[in-house]
Amino acid sequence: MFVQDSSTTIAELKTLVGAFVAERKWEPFHDPKNLSASIAIEAAELMEHFQWLRSEELAAVLHDAKAMSEIRDEVADIAAYLLSFATRMGIDLASALDEKMKKNAVKYPTEKFSGRFR
Amino acid sequence: MFVQDSSTTIAELKTLVGAFVAERKWEPFHDPKNLSASIAIEAAELMEHFQWLRSEELAAVLHDAKAMSEIRDEVADIAAYLLSFATRMGIDLASALDEKMKKNAVKYPTEKFSGRFR
Amino acid sequence: MFVQDSSTTIAELKTLVGAFVAERKWEPFHDPKNLSASIAIEAAELMEHFQWLRSEELAAVLHDAKAMSEIRDEVADIAAYLLSFATRMGIDLASALDEKMKKNAVKYPTEKFSGRFR
Amino acid sequence: MFVQDSSTTIAELKTLVGAFVAERKWEPFHDPKNLSASIAIEAAELMEHFQWLRSEELAAVLHDAKAMSEIRDEVADIAAYLLSFATRMGIDLASALDEKMKKNAVKYPTEKFSGRFR
Repeated sequence: MFVQDSSTTIAELKTLVGAFVAERKWEPFHDPKNLSASIAIEAAELMEHFQWLRSEELAAVLHDAKAMSEIRDEVADIAAYLLSFATRMGIDLASALDEKMKKNAVKYPTEKFSGRFR
Repeated sequence: MFVQDSSTTIAELKTLVGAFVAERKWEPFHDPKNLSASIAIEAAELMEHFQWLRSEELAAVLHDAKAMSEIRDEVADIAAYLLSFATRMGIDLASALDEKMKKNAVKYPTEKFSGRFR
Repeated sequence: MFVQDSSTTIAELKTLVGAFVAERKWEPFHDPKNLSASIAIEAAELMEHFQWLRSEELAAVLHDAKAMSEIRDEVADIAAYLLSFATRMGIDLASALDEKMKKNAVKYPTEKFSGRFR
Repeated sequence: MFVQDSSTTIAELKTLVGAFVAERKWEPFHDPKNLSASIAIEAAELMEHFQWLRSEELAAVLHDAKAMSEIRDEVADIAAYLLSFATRMGIDLASALDEKMKKNAVKYPTEKFSGRFR
């Protein structure tokens, strides 16, 4: 199986992560409290890459191969815990996102929030 | 389009989120530093639902419809920012996850880590 | 007692927070895992105030009375949980900080790190 | 100066941290956005020590000298950034905490919240 954004479904990624966890019998550790903390921990590790950078220095990170490789791994870690959390809680991630974006569209009407976040 | 884990690809979700951001001209706010902080902020909101619960109290959350609805929205928020981050940084999320799980399989061999996290 | 930075000791603040927790019999909730998550949750709420601001927009926050009042409360929340955590773990916060700054002074020698974080 | 909770004031700790930052000319990095993210990053590192532990396993950490030493350092890191943030924003930390605890006392009356967090 060639795994890539253009063809891989959320369900397939859930299966990928779920199999890894099951093979190690890690389900008892993967309760929702621990998984939510794990997402936050990995998110903090992602933030570290930008901790002291000013807004105008951020574009340079795209050209830093070492940083980009580490950032890619952090993104994957967040995704793994998020998928594991969704599986554990019986949440369909794609439909949850679709519905939340519809709520957000009501909360942030285009005309009022164009180029503004408040 | 019926959006659901079993049929929706990562690329489709990236498009969904990307269109929302573009319609509001929010790209200038969505730099990698701000998005990584946003993932952490939403992850903290998810953690709040379990903040004071003991391990044995977690299962009851599954039967709390109000909590589950809020948790579903938090999960969607994390996903939205994670997808936006990946798009912004040119990261293929599915292949990043697939490769990270292969690294993790080397780091955590099944026989040594069965039922153990260290 | 007039509580202010120039005359109030860490021990006095620990007592202030400890009394509040004890009066509500909240010690069972205040285990180190929950308190560490609580610090992270409050830190995320503090981050929210700067979530979409560019570096050059930060100075204006100092003149926003409503934001400053909320920020002051978030800072207090982080301090409360940090003090509660230190009390719970038997950590002398002042000496821990003093010793860590001495370690940092070795790790970040002045001549090498002047105006640089790496 | 012997630094300890029983005799050291918040102002003295602010001076300790402020001198460290000034000697390295790090003030430009220590803007409120970066410092709030830094508090969150260090809080996540503190959480990591309890990431996979169940409630009943937490007491054992107190007897793990290596873990306790690392935890002490993380607590110091959070304190350092929190003090630096308060200094930067002109916030008197002790009075902010005192006032917040008074607000909390109104929000969480003893009779209603005894042994309950909601």
